[in-house]
Amino acid sequence: MTYCVGLFLKDGLVMLSDTRTNAGVDNIATFSKTHVYEIPGERFMALMTSGNLGVSQAVVNMLHEGINTGERVENLYSVPSMFRAAQLVGEAVRRVFNTDGRTLEAQNVKFEVSLLLGGQIKGRSMRLFQIYAAGNFIEATPDTPFLQIGETKYGKPILDRALSYNTDPRDGVKLVLVSMDSTLRSNLTVGMPIDLLVYRRDEAQAALKRRINEDDPYFRMIRDTWSKALRDAYLAIPRPEWLA
Amino acid sequence: MTYCVGLFLKDGLVMLSDTRTNAGVDNIATFSKTHVYEIPGERFMALMTSGNLGVSQAVVNMLHEGINTGERVENLYSVPSMFRAAQLVGEAVRRVFNTDGRTLEAQNVKFEVSLLLGGQIKGRSMRLFQIYAAGNFIEATPDTPFLQIGETKYGKPILDRALSYNTDPRDGVKLVLVSMDSTLRSNLTVGMPIDLLVYRRDEAQAALKRRINEDDPYFRMIRDTWSKALRDAYLAIPRPEWLA
Repeated sequence: MTYCVGLFLKDGLVMLSDTRTNAGVDNIATFSKTHVYEIPGERFMALMTSGNLGVSQAVVNMLHEGINTGERVENLYSVPSMFRAAQLVGEAVRRVFNTDGRTLEAQNVKFEVSLLLGGQIKGRSMRLFQIYAAGNFIEATPDTPFLQIGETKYGKPILDRALSYNTDPRDGVKLVLVSMDSTLRSNLTVGMPIDLLVYRRDEAQAALKRRINEDDPYFRMIRDTWSKALRDAYLAIPRPEWLA
Repeated sequence: MTYCVGLFLKDGLVMLSDTRTNAGVDNIATFSKTHVYEIPGERFMALMTSGNLGVSQAVVNMLHEGINTGERVENLYSVPSMFRAAQLVGEAVRRVFNTDGRTLEAQNVKFEVSLLLGGQIKGRSMRLFQIYAAGNFIEATPDTPFLQIGETKYGKPILDRALSYNTDPRDGVKLVLVSMDSTLRSNLTVGMPIDLLVYRRDEAQAALKRRINEDDPYFRMIRDTWSKALRDAYLAIPRPEWLA
């Protein structure tokens, strides 16, 4: 499995993915699931993938090659808007499905892929999309300022409770790291290292691209602080009077 | 769905279940998923169910009726040990599968049922089991002092982090309520009220059976305190130096 999360905030985007892939517990590997398409000052886009690795790599490769849409060959460096970018990713998903879907199905392998696409083109809106296996997509909004793919449940409660559209991206970084840590601790199919991206609205280039390893001091501090904070918080709650 | 959790602690058992059942989002109802079999001073057993309501009710009804195992009719008031009790629950699951499984399958309904069985018979060991849809089962141990069924993921991180075999049952009550609250907030198929049981080792009768409603002051206090504690804890974490 995988865990990827994207925050859509007033001041920017925060996106985080793990790097573990597994085909059974005895076949695990590290693959980056984060792909950046950037012309600094003109456009920044980040694509994060989950699902069947063969499918998600085929989608990414097709996007790299460019997609012939009849009139021209389009790619994420040439599309004029984030909406068109999401459409192009969806088109790549559908083409991979048309090529591989039936054979996968015949071999009882589910056509599974899900992607997060966030970014901005200079002069256009900053947007964050989740693209489904059918190639259709949804978009984060101020009401629901985060999207998750993969093993989403362990890391959702902290986001449900603490995140809002007005959260500062630096605090957003803390929240996605806590959310990832909760997932890493409870599910072996999500693994270190993790890839973090921060984008500030209207800058049209990444504010931060950082790979965080097991021994990263800041991530270790968050893990330790958070565990201790949770233990302290529950111990501080008074015991129920109705139980002697 | 459902969320049930059982803690197996040095000093006793803590078990909690929600009461929501749903067949689609437009057909939800409240059913107790907790069944207590108790002869005070002689035995205490609690059974919590998740899965297809038709299947789990059939299992519970069969256990109430008693199961003819050839030599005699056995039920949870007559079995001599918790191990035999778990076997009997497993036998009930298999009999329901033999009756209903094929028809359910023909109608594309999965035979889904999962149960937690905890308790103690005077003079015997206190035990906590999880029984699967095949009728086989596993047992909680001091190394893994909790078992969950249903929507288990949202509420697992807090247990992974804060629970140990030596946790006081009164603190265990706090932890299962926090775990349930995380699940309730993130998943609509788990709903109030919730049923709480506490059993103290070697007492052979419940220390507490309590239904907790939406307006229960203690549960409300936990919800509010916990949300505030999480927000405070993440805000107290220093921001990363590497992000201006």
